[in-house]
Amino acid sequence: MKSSLIRELVASTKSIPDLISFAGGFPAPATFPKHILSELYLNVVNEDGYEVLQYGASEGDIQLKNELIKWEGYKELTTQKMLITSGATNGIFYFAKALVDPGDVVLCEAPSFLGSLVAFEAIGAETIGIPVQEDGIDLDQLIHTIQSLKRQNKQIKFLYLIPDFQNPSGVTMTLAKRKELIALCIKENIPILEDNPYSRLRFFGKTVPTLYSVCASDFAGAEIVTEIVSFSKILGPGMRLAFVKGSAEIISRMESWQQKITVTPDCVTQRVAALFLNKGFINPHIETICNYYKPFLHKMLSELEIHMPDKVEWTKPEGGIFLWLWLPEKTNADELFALAREQKVAFIPGSKFYPTGQEKFNCLRLNYTFSTETQIEKGIERLGNLLKTLLA
Amino acid sequence: MKSSLIRELVASTKSIPDLISFAGGFPAPATFPKHILSELYLNVVNEDGYEVLQYGASEGDIQLKNELIKWEGYKELTTQKMLITSGATNGIFYFAKALVDPGDVVLCEAPSFLGSLVAFEAIGAETIGIPVQEDGIDLDQLIHTIQSLKRQNKQIKFLYLIPDFQNPSGVTMTLAKRKELIALCIKENIPILEDNPYSRLRFFGKTVPTLYSVCASDFAGAEIVTEIVSFSKILGPGMRLAFVKGSAEIISRMESWQQKITVTPDCVTQRVAALFLNKGFINPHIETICNYYKPFLHKMLSELEIHMPDKVEWTKPEGGIFLWLWLPEKTNADELFALAREQKVAFIPGSKFYPTGQEKFNCLRLNYTFSTETQIEKGIERLGNLLKTLLA
Repeated sequence: MKSSLIRELVASTKSIPDLISFAGGFPAPATFPKHILSELYLNVVNEDGYEVLQYGASEGDIQLKNELIKWEGYKELTTQKMLITSGATNGIFYFAKALVDPGDVVLCEAPSFLGSLVAFEAIGAETIGIPVQEDGIDLDQLIHTIQSLKRQNKQIKFLYLIPDFQNPSGVTMTLAKRKELIALCIKENIPILEDNPYSRLRFFGKTVPTLYSVCASDFAGAEIVTEIVSFSKILGPGMRLAFVKGSAEIISRMESWQQKITVTPDCVTQRVAALFLNKGFINPHIETICNYYKPFLHKMLSELEIHMPDKVEWTKPEGGIFLWLWLPEKTNADELFALAREQKVAFIPGSKFYPTGQEKFNCLRLNYTFSTETQIEKGIERLGNLLKTLLA
Repeated sequence: MKSSLIRELVASTKSIPDLISFAGGFPAPATFPKHILSELYLNVVNEDGYEVLQYGASEGDIQLKNELIKWEGYKELTTQKMLITSGATNGIFYFAKALVDPGDVVLCEAPSFLGSLVAFEAIGAETIGIPVQEDGIDLDQLIHTIQSLKRQNKQIKFLYLIPDFQNPSGVTMTLAKRKELIALCIKENIPILEDNPYSRLRFFGKTVPTLYSVCASDFAGAEIVTEIVSFSKILGPGMRLAFVKGSAEIISRMESWQQKITVTPDCVTQRVAALFLNKGFINPHIETICNYYKPFLHKMLSELEIHMPDKVEWTKPEGGIFLWLWLPEKTNADELFALAREQKVAFIPGSKFYPTGQEKFNCLRLNYTFSTETQIEKGIERLGNLLKTLLA
């Protein structure tokens, strides 16, 4: 399994002193609003303890749902079209469980988020990746693949996408492509699962409306998009919270799996998140996070510019937590990993983010939210020098 | 699905004013240690916030595991043989996922906990119930069933049991039977899943060691028992916490599912539970709960004695939260439910706790931890009068 390979990779770097790691996908602890949250936990358990320490609804806390509806401002949205889950991966699993029988096809971007690929494989889906371009998924390739699968009588159950600051590539899909994509999926009757952990972590540039939002405004009534928003990068991953918006039917089927597998998300934590929204902390806090991360992204982009040899290319995201390097075609980033480890710098080889058997090897993922600016400076210099030597 | 039938049943009583309900399985909110917990949440997030708001280990918080090992006192137990899960149902699902392929057989007590039956069915198991007697599962019937299944070349993947204050029957398995059962399962190579939400809720009488404990002391090295202990009835179900002890192999396979489905249980809540143990709150708190529930059990037992007609029998548990009524063979508790609702009293018909197709109808479950003593008095009187009329 790729996930255990990654753990082995990361473990292999753990005993190295002064290692600079761009491998993780962890948010910076400095962005956790721990003092506000600690007071909210105190108040919630003291004041609503008899309620939040009791069994809760398997669809999630109604107060949290109502706060989320107010925050996001969708006029047609009702609580029946929302589900709270124990983190986004949890919601992705329930969505896949609700739709996929073993042998069905799930389409995704290639590369994509490993946790989702692992979940789809565990459910028995055949996962097929469509290349990600600078402006998002390759639509021509998508159409070609759909047609080819239909000729083989394969059941395409859904298309999984991370349209904003994609993990691992850092790519954001353009608005024009979003519209084209939704029209295509409506025509082909292929549900879209929009995984959205990062869209609010935009440090500069113009916000692109989510697929869910584009569908609601431009394709009213289509309900082909289910969006999962994680709190992991805007509150803290340890709280294990995400929320899902979709058709009443898909939400009900996902809820039925939640009831069987976790009964309900943590009720204390759900109410704390509800209060965090209710008291107006969320938008200023997200601004704080963006201001915190922005210099690190700038630093990494400028250091790449300084130190990388000409033949290396990289994405230039305006937010999120990752960027992606393309190496010359014959350079293998799995091999580079071992050499870089000797130079005390780590990353995740790009091959780990592709469905099994569909790997590309001349690419790698860099995270810039868990290092200091000095570490970014030194780490990118080391990686650049290593690549200069290798490609000389 | 039986679970939605129960929800419909319960929903059908919701608009009835002054309804007395013995239907739920909820602990009494008065037993939630909310003031202690609120302070612990405050301290944990303030002091360990950078750690507990971050991604945690998929096997669970190491501090919580170490506190649990100290609390339970098993000398051979290591953290590799433990898993923290988001509630017991969650652990039961991972256990079943780790062992069962569609079509495999799972054995259980009949009646048994509905949530588990639903999970086993969802995974595609053929679930076969073995009757529960006054002293626990019917061993002769178990042996007979195992032999018959073996002749049919069926794969029996595990035996699911709630040996203490069983849900729904309230029955506790005797020590002699526990030993016989473990010896049998070792001989037949059938793993046991011991679901233990209630063993510590003993109000009087002598504690019987858990199957896990009997196996560790009398069958050292066998590792045939995996025990799941829920915090739902000793801290609060809203916290969604349970812990699992088993062989390193089964724990590792369960962890792999946890990683795919929930990544990790809520890290804040796990650390709060660790502190609750560390500061010595747990044993006095459990004593408080037992003292709180004891009069309600006494009240229900004495009211049953006063009001039930001769032909009705019931279990006499020494703890837990449920007891079980047997009605004369032709009396159908599903029909009785509708009549009782008119008398403003509710329970769960016993048929809901049997695997599909194996139902008994002349039985029902009563909960006594969510009503006042006056409600118990009035509710049992109403039910008794109804049965007297019906059986006259």
